[in-house]
Amino acid sequence: MVFEEKILLNPIAVVKTEAVGNEVKDKTRTSQIIVREELVDALDGISGFSHIFVLFWLSQISDEQKKTLKVHPRGRIDLPLLGVFATRTQFRPNPIGLTIVELLKVEDNVLTVRGLDAFDGTPVLDLKPYDHWDRAENIKVPDWLMKLEKEKSQ
Amino acid sequence: MVFEEKILLNPIAVVKTEAVGNEVKDKTRTSQIIVREELVDALDGISGFSHIFVLFWLSQISDEQKKTLKVHPRGRIDLPLLGVFATRTQFRPNPIGLTIVELLKVEDNVLTVRGLDAFDGTPVLDLKPYDHWDRAENIKVPDWLMKLEKEKSQ
Repeated sequence: MVFEEKILLNPIAVVKTEAVGNEVKDKTRTSQIIVREELVDALDGISGFSHIFVLFWLSQISDEQKKTLKVHPRGRIDLPLLGVFATRTQFRPNPIGLTIVELLKVEDNVLTVRGLDAFDGTPVLDLKPYDHWDRAENIKVPDWLMKLEKEKSQ
Repeated sequence: MVFEEKILLNPIAVVKTEAVGNEVKDKTRTSQIIVREELVDALDGISGFSHIFVLFWLSQISDEQKKTLKVHPRGRIDLPLLGVFATRTQFRPNPIGLTIVELLKVEDNVLTVRGLDAFDGTPVLDLKPYDHWDRAENIKVPDWLMKLEKEKSQ
C-alpha cells in the first residue's frame, strides 16, 4: 500500500475566461487555455482532434471542503445524499476537474475551447486527446441522474 | 498567471492486480481498487454506475521522463512525431493516467473493475462516475489514430 505517498504537481497551463460565477457552466461559452511557453512543442498535433479532456485543479476548494464525504448532487436536497465519488462534485479529496471540451483553435501556446466549466485563473494539470475509445458503450447510470439528464435536455 | 503554484495530492486508493508488464493493457482483465478505509462513505451510490473514470498517478515516470515534449504514439516510428498533449503517452509533465473502466462490483472499500491499465500498487487520485455527457458526439481524430483504431478492431 502506498497511501502515504505525497504527489507534487506543477500546472502546465492556466484558464482565461470572461465568464464569472455560474456563467462558467454555460457549455456554449468559449475560454482560452494558455499553456506555459516552454511546453509549446508538446501541443504539436493536438489540433487534429475535435475534442480534448482538460484536467484542472479546483484551487478554490479549501482543506475543510476536501474532507467532504457525502453530498446531494448539485446541492439539490430532492436528490439522494451520495458519496462524493458517486458524483462530479467539486468537494472531493483531490479536487481535480475533468471536462471534455471542443477544441476550436490552436495558436502558438493558446488553445480556444468550448464548454470548459472552469473559472478564470484555474491551473490546468493535463490535456489529453479524446478518441473513440473514450466513448463507452451500453452505459448505465442511476435513476437520480437520469432525472437530471432529462431535465437538462428539455 | 498561477504557473508557480505547487499542488499536493494524497492518493485515495491503490490498484491491486495480478497482471504484470504488458498484461495490464489487456482490457478484458479485472483489477481491484482498494480505497482508504476512512473514505468508504464517499463510495455510497457509485454502484449505480456501469462505468467510472479512474484517475491515477503514474508513479514510475521519472523526473527526466516528465520533461519529454514529443513522442511517436505507442513508440511506433511509422507514426508521426507528436507533442505529448496530442497523445495518451505516460511521458507527460503531470503523469496522470485517465481510464474509463467497467465497474463490476463494490464491496465495502473494494471496487472490482474491468479494463484498468494500471500496474499493481498504482496510487489512485480520484474516481468519477461516467455519464451520458461524457460521450462526446461527432468527434474527429487525426489520420494516424484512425489507422491505429482500425488495426485494433481487426
